[in-house]
Amino acid sequence: MRVAVGIDLGGTFIKGAVIDEEGRLLVKEEVPTEAGNGADSILRRIEQLTRRLIVASDVRANEVVGLGIGIPGFIDSSRGVAEEVINIGWRDVPVIAPLRSWLQMPVFMENDANLAALGEAWVGAGRGYRTALCITLGTGVGGGIIIDGKVLQGASHMAGEIGHLVLDPLGAPCNCGHFGCLETVSSATGVVRLARERIEKGEQTQLTLQQLTAADVFAAAERHDLLAQAVVQEAAQTLGRGLAIAANLINPDVIVIGGGMARAGETLFKPVREAFSAYALRRVASATTLVPALLGNDAGVVGAGKLALYP
Amino acid sequence: MRVAVGIDLGGTFIKGAVIDEEGRLLVKEEVPTEAGNGADSILRRIEQLTRRLIVASDVRANEVVGLGIGIPGFIDSSRGVAEEVINIGWRDVPVIAPLRSWLQMPVFMENDANLAALGEAWVGAGRGYRTALCITLGTGVGGGIIIDGKVLQGASHMAGEIGHLVLDPLGAPCNCGHFGCLETVSSATGVVRLARERIEKGEQTQLTLQQLTAADVFAAAERHDLLAQAVVQEAAQTLGRGLAIAANLINPDVIVIGGGMARAGETLFKPVREAFSAYALRRVASATTLVPALLGNDAGVVGAGKLALYP
Repeated sequence: MRVAVGIDLGGTFIKGAVIDEEGRLLVKEEVPTEAGNGADSILRRIEQLTRRLIVASDVRANEVVGLGIGIPGFIDSSRGVAEEVINIGWRDVPVIAPLRSWLQMPVFMENDANLAALGEAWVGAGRGYRTALCITLGTGVGGGIIIDGKVLQGASHMAGEIGHLVLDPLGAPCNCGHFGCLETVSSATGVVRLARERIEKGEQTQLTLQQLTAADVFAAAERHDLLAQAVVQEAAQTLGRGLAIAANLINPDVIVIGGGMARAGETLFKPVREAFSAYALRRVASATTLVPALLGNDAGVVGAGKLALYP
Repeated sequence: MRVAVGIDLGGTFIKGAVIDEEGRLLVKEEVPTEAGNGADSILRRIEQLTRRLIVASDVRANEVVGLGIGIPGFIDSSRGVAEEVINIGWRDVPVIAPLRSWLQMPVFMENDANLAALGEAWVGAGRGYRTALCITLGTGVGGGIIIDGKVLQGASHMAGEIGHLVLDPLGAPCNCGHFGCLETVSSATGVVRLARERIEKGEQTQLTLQQLTAADVFAAAERHDLLAQAVVQEAAQTLGRGLAIAANLINPDVIVIGGGMARAGETLFKPVREAFSAYALRRVASATTLVPALLGNDAGVVGAGKLALYP
C-alpha cells in the first residue's frame, strides 16, 4: 500500500489526513493554527500532526510516500516558499525545506483552492472527467482547474482565480482593489451585501438586518420572500455568467460547485444552470455538467494527498 | 530529418506547408477552396496539395511523419469528423479516414484557431513560455490556449473561445446569438460598428462612412481624431478586460495577439496593456507578457505541422 499525508493549512485550523492510493481517507485530525506564535511554530505543528497521523493510520513508515500541503495564499513551488499568506501573516516563509529535513520524506505544496479542486476532481464530484473547474462559494469565491488529473498552475500558481473576474467594472469594491469582481456578488458576503442594500432601501421582506447570513437569504427565498428571491437571482445570474465565461475559455467537462453557499441546493443551482446556458456558447454548455461538490471540508486534504501520491 | 505537412483549411483558400522538426517552413502553397464543389472535392484538393508539397520539399517519403489539418469549425477528433463548418457548408464530414487511406500516413485534426495558437506558442511570439494564450483579432476574435506545448482541447475542442465571453450582457448582438460578446467590440467588425454609430450620431471626425475599415479608424486615431481615439479606447478597454479575465483563470506566461487589427501596433497594444493591468489580479498581471504575434498567416500551417510531428 502507498499512502500520503495531506495537510490543509487554514487561518484557524490545520487539517490533516492520511490518504491512500484510491483517495480514501484513513484517519484525520485537526489542530488550531495559532498563527500568532509565528511561522516556525506552525511548521512544527504540521510536522507533529504528520507524525501523529502516520502512527494513527497504522501504516508502515515505508508506505508513506510523502506529504502534500495546501497553502492559503501565494506560493513559489520551485523555491518551496510561501511568498505571501495574509491570514497567517507569512511573507517568504520556506515550507518545503524544513519539513523535508524534519520528516525525511518528499514534501509538495500548492495553493489550497487548487488542492480542494484536485480532491473533488480525483474522487469527488469531478471523478471520471478529464477537464474540471471546481469552485468554492464561501466568504469569497475560490477555484481551481484540473486537467487530466493535474492542477493547472499557470505562470505563478494563480490559475482558477474565478472570484476576481471583473464582470461589472462599475460594480462594488472588492478586497483585491478592483471593482465588480464576481465575488462581490456571488459569495456569501456578496449575497448579504445585496440583501442589506435592498433592506436599507425599504423593500418589503421577512429578513432583518441583525446577524443576516447568506443562509437566511436562501431560506427566505425558498419561502417566496421577494427581496430574497431577487438577491438569489442576481447572485445566480452573475455566477452563471462567470462560469459561462470560464467555460468558453477552458471548455470543462464538469463544473463542481462547493462551499457553504452550495448547501442551498437547487435554490441556487437551478438559476445558475439557467444563466450558464444563456451565456455559454451552445456547444460549450452542452458539453458541461454542473454538479454540487461531494467532499465538503475534506476536499483540501484529499487533494493534498493526491499531490504527494501522484506529483 | 522528420517533417510533416500542415494544412490550414479556410473558406476561400487551402494553405499548405511542409514543416520540419524545428518549426521551419520548407515549402508552402495555397489553392482555392472552391467550397461549392462539395466536401469530397475539398478533401481531394487537400490530398493533391499534400502530395505536391512533399515533392516540392525534396524530402524522402519516409521522412514525412504525417499530416495535420486545421478545420475552421467544430470537430470531433476522436471520430475524425468535422461536425459543423459553416463557411464551407460541412456537416458531419469524415476527414481523417479518407485522407489516411489515400495518403497512407497518420492524419490529425484540430480547430484552426487552436492550431494558429499552437504555431505561435511553438516557434512564434510564445516560444519558450509554458502557458500561452494566443488570440487573433480579425472579423471575429479567435483564440487558443497552449499548455506545455499541447493545445488545451477541453471537452469538445471549444477551449479558447475568448471572442464569445459575454462582457456586457446589455451590449450589441453577436453572431453567436448572445449579446455583448467581446468580439462585438474588440474585433475589426466591432471597431467599424462603434465608429459608424458615433459618425451617425454626428460626432466630429475626419472619418467617412464609405468603405470604413478598422485600419482607417486606427490611422485616424494616430492623427488625433477624437472620435477614432474614443473608439480605439473602447475596443482596447474591452479587450484588456477580456484578457484580464482569461488571465485570472489560466494565469498565462504570455499572451500573443495577432490578426489584422494587431498591425495597429502600439496604438492598440498600449491601451490594451493598461486595461489588462487595471483588471487582472496584480500577481497575474505581473507574470504575463503581452506581445504581438510573429508568424502572421503562417501560424496555422506551422501549428498543423506541430500537431502531426508531436501529437
